Amino acid sequence: MGQPLYVELLGSCAALFTTLCWLPQTIRSIRTRDTASLSLATFSVFVGGLILWLIYGILIGSWPIIVANVLTLMLNLVILAQKLRHG
Amino acid sequence: MGQPLYVELLGSCAALFTTLCWLPQTIRSIRTRDTASLSLATFSVFVGGLILWLIYGILIGSWPIIVANVLTLMLNLVILAQKLRHG
Repeated sequence: MGQPLYVELLGSCAALFTTLCWLPQTIRSIRTRDTASLSLATFSVFVGGLILWLIYGILIGSWPIIVANVLTLMLNLVILAQKLRHG
Repeated sequence: MGQPLYVELLGSCAALFTTLCWLPQTIRSIRTRDTASLSLATFSVFVGGLILWLIYGILIGSWPIIVANVLTLMLNLVILAQKLRHG
């Protein structure tokens, strides 16, 4: 990528954190069915933005952007579905 | 950036969506003080990841990454503070 290794490792850690962090929220929204304090606007626009990031990643051919956004999108689609179902 | 204009516009839209989407959740968590269905683990790790993205943006000198992550970080620090305060 033209960056020193420690910079690329830091970026990979950043991507890992902001992707995997959605797992506990997804599990919680499935288990408790409590989504009352989640903002519908936030998670709708977030999912829309993740879809745009995914298309962007495909267009520029960046595998890290594609993989990170596919995973984040899948988790947040479940959260959004739970919000739409349980309010 | 070496990408066609429409690709850069798409990327900018993606960044705008995944940044500004946090505004309604921030306002909601301040107004209602209800953060019960938010996952503490999710928002802690998300904030940690945003700090890593910010350092990464500074190290590679990318203004879009810096600006997007400063804004997203500020909004999510408020959400995390509300979660820590109100549970």
